[in-house]
Amino acid sequence: MAKEITSRQENYSQWYNDIVNKADLAENSPVRGCMVIKPHGYSIWEKMQGVLDRMFKDTGHTNAYFPLFIPKSFFSKEASHVEGFAKECAVVTHYRLTTDEDGKEIIVDKNARLDEELIVRPTSETIIWHTYKGWIQSYRDLPILVNQWANIVRWEMRTRLFLRTAEFLWQEGHTAHATKEEALEETRRMIDVYADFAENWMAMPVLKGTKTDAERFAGAIQTYTIEALMQDGKALQSGTSHFLGQNFAKAFDVKFTDQSGTLDYVWATSWGVSTRLMGALIMAHSDDNGLVVPPKLAPTQVVIVPIYKKDAQLDEISAKAHEIKDQLQQKGITVKYDDRDTQTPGWKFSEYEMKGVPLRLAIGPRDIQNATLEIARRDTLEKEIISQEGVADHIEQLLADIQKGIYEKALRFREENTYYVDDYEEFKQIMSEKGGFVWAHWDGTEETELKIKEETKATIRLVPVEENPEPGKCIYSGKPSKQRVVFARAY
Amino acid sequence: MAKEITSRQENYSQWYNDIVNKADLAENSPVRGCMVIKPHGYSIWEKMQGVLDRMFKDTGHTNAYFPLFIPKSFFSKEASHVEGFAKECAVVTHYRLTTDEDGKEIIVDKNARLDEELIVRPTSETIIWHTYKGWIQSYRDLPILVNQWANIVRWEMRTRLFLRTAEFLWQEGHTAHATKEEALEETRRMIDVYADFAENWMAMPVLKGTKTDAERFAGAIQTYTIEALMQDGKALQSGTSHFLGQNFAKAFDVKFTDQSGTLDYVWATSWGVSTRLMGALIMAHSDDNGLVVPPKLAPTQVVIVPIYKKDAQLDEISAKAHEIKDQLQQKGITVKYDDRDTQTPGWKFSEYEMKGVPLRLAIGPRDIQNATLEIARRDTLEKEIISQEGVADHIEQLLADIQKGIYEKALRFREENTYYVDDYEEFKQIMSEKGGFVWAHWDGTEETELKIKEETKATIRLVPVEENPEPGKCIYSGKPSKQRVVFARAY
Repeated sequence: MAKEITSRQENYSQWYNDIVNKADLAENSPVRGCMVIKPHGYSIWEKMQGVLDRMFKDTGHTNAYFPLFIPKSFFSKEASHVEGFAKECAVVTHYRLTTDEDGKEIIVDKNARLDEELIVRPTSETIIWHTYKGWIQSYRDLPILVNQWANIVRWEMRTRLFLRTAEFLWQEGHTAHATKEEALEETRRMIDVYADFAENWMAMPVLKGTKTDAERFAGAIQTYTIEALMQDGKALQSGTSHFLGQNFAKAFDVKFTDQSGTLDYVWATSWGVSTRLMGALIMAHSDDNGLVVPPKLAPTQVVIVPIYKKDAQLDEISAKAHEIKDQLQQKGITVKYDDRDTQTPGWKFSEYEMKGVPLRLAIGPRDIQNATLEIARRDTLEKEIISQEGVADHIEQLLADIQKGIYEKALRFREENTYYVDDYEEFKQIMSEKGGFVWAHWDGTEETELKIKEETKATIRLVPVEENPEPGKCIYSGKPSKQRVVFARAY
Repeated sequence: MAKEITSRQENYSQWYNDIVNKADLAENSPVRGCMVIKPHGYSIWEKMQGVLDRMFKDTGHTNAYFPLFIPKSFFSKEASHVEGFAKECAVVTHYRLTTDEDGKEIIVDKNARLDEELIVRPTSETIIWHTYKGWIQSYRDLPILVNQWANIVRWEMRTRLFLRTAEFLWQEGHTAHATKEEALEETRRMIDVYADFAENWMAMPVLKGTKTDAERFAGAIQTYTIEALMQDGKALQSGTSHFLGQNFAKAFDVKFTDQSGTLDYVWATSWGVSTRLMGALIMAHSDDNGLVVPPKLAPTQVVIVPIYKKDAQLDEISAKAHEIKDQLQQKGITVKYDDRDTQTPGWKFSEYEMKGVPLRLAIGPRDIQNATLEIARRDTLEKEIISQEGVADHIEQLLADIQKGIYEKALRFREENTYYVDDYEEFKQIMSEKGGFVWAHWDGTEETELKIKEETKATIRLVPVEENPEPGKCIYSGKPSKQRVVFARAY
């Protein structure tokens, strides 16, 4: 067979790289840390974008576009934001190339130096709040509910395709509100949208909660997060929504007049997900045969492969295949009929298995005689011969079953890898041997959080939002704890 | 009334700026030459994107994503490409910021200088062909039909919102083929797609043809273009499709084995349209009252405004408005019901006129009594009172009429401003006094083309592709000419 991949057990990290590579999702580029998202990978990202964009619009948001570049001085305006973001950035210093004295080599034109350097956006709060100042005078101008789809650059030293790249694609929502309550409501609404997307589209169960002070977004008062568990027992932060208070409004002097004529600073939120979700999708569901994609996000949900020896057989098979394709398309199912004669059926089977097409149909001469076809599920790798009668209904049901099955499998995995631990030795052992989500008591101090991180590489992924949290004693210091928090090693 | 704009006659250029500004389409940002595309402007761009993306997919293309940055050395690889593009570029030289000695100011970290500078992409042929080298070995890997939606940076010195900005959004198709014929066919297919889009969606008539050597894309063998006429008599290049021959394949050493086992360089095309189309859309149709958007690209096609004095009246009006809204939505028409009580009906009328909503409905207490409503067309500014009976069919028809009417008006304008000229004095007079498209004979030399440009500011917009061109004498040199070409002053 064509392509082989390393098994998860042998080398999980290599398994991930193999899938990204061999399922044609992405590859490294000649620019350090920047990836090429290949057509198959991009088509999954497009499906994600489409669903999320619809969700954003259904919750009242519109899209806009802000500049790629941010003047260097903007980063100094919000004190904690500068700490977090004015570090590993791509800096534009010149605006012209020229040829050297010999006219042979292209060099940077020294006479074309910018007065103020420009930073390729690592996030857009500063430039957006600078812009909002011009948009907001009165309560009539609020709320502003804007989202941007954009590319982002953070000069990461250690990069991995999708999971951590110097350039990545994302969306960033930036909203402005008249009241604190409204901004908080928006913050929570958007983390709920992300959780809904993760669970009902990506088939990936997530935990929802808030970040600790140490893990919070630079410039935020409160950060909500969703966290998913990968198959190696590590957590992956899959979306965040930030309540920014009046921090950016103060930094950029954005005030509004309320209905009573009083002047006040505007309240803000921001929220985002990125191509990192592609990494989460891959690691949540795939197996040692390649990619597994939930049907709702699969660019091609069903592929039909003809099996034949003589061209005459192909005509009859093709007629039947087109008939089935039409029936499926009428149900809104995405179908590809692959009758290329440049590749064998075996090559095609392994190709679509690698790329994660949820259902594969095969039709041969015997199927034509018997009015049957062979159907293979990507998730369970089960095959069966079914009647052509009612095939569209059957497939529609199967796709729903697969979507549900993939979610339940991931949920079962998370449950099997979730621990309630009260003993620090046990905690350390779980972290070093098994991984997973560990619910444990914490005294609420950054000091303890840091010590645990140093000793176990585990961080507090989130503080659950619970109505009646159960108090206890910190697993590390023994001091009082208000509630259990969720620890894990993370991507 | 709220907003006023300069008339076209008084100052065309200011009229354009006023519309962009007051219809909330875009604004300048603190970064020189980079624009903020505001929600209303972006929503029109999104409609354009959606239609074009569908057209690309229907012609067999898939999307992918390539890095924002291109290593400086890549530009030297294709000789004519470097001439055209390695000039006014944003150059990334460093990858880190730090604080100065006092810890007060943010400065560029001198220790974080890149070994090789990175250029923010001014177009992506080089990095894409570098990538294609890894994707192509045999004829089985061809054709590659890939498109990218991306942001682009060209450090323009004189910028205008949408028409010429340092950063802009675009799509760039990059295809690879086994034969010259197939690549040429693709080049022509895509200029046809652009012409179809311009005429049938933007309601903007275009001329189609090829560029002269002087006006051709840097690195192309042949460039096809579509050109539209703006209301000030200037042409606007609205889309280009390039046959790149084997130039980039040779520059990046991309060869393939054909079915007979022979090794040859791959054939290439590239094609693109950008947010410049927003400028074309604005200037093709708008009037002294604001923006006019063809219904097929209008984010909101119909707005309903309630007219009332007492809240009790509003209830009845709202019930009727929602009923009509539902009927329209069932026909796939985009409707907004604006019942905000923070703005007056007069303010709303002028707002939607400025923003180019094709149809405005107003419903007052008398309409409720008479089962009528007032309907106002944005394109002709005509108002009429119509019966509520059959309103959805009526509006559906009206939207189609408006789409057609806008196109025909623009076509009429172009016909009235098209000249066939054989005398150079007349040519000069038309160019300086009226503008428009001038069909004239040209001797085919770059020298003549340049002289005419110097003396009249007119360029050859295109060489029409005609089966039996009519020969003649060059309007400038009197030398033999194979056919008339189209001159105009251009954006």
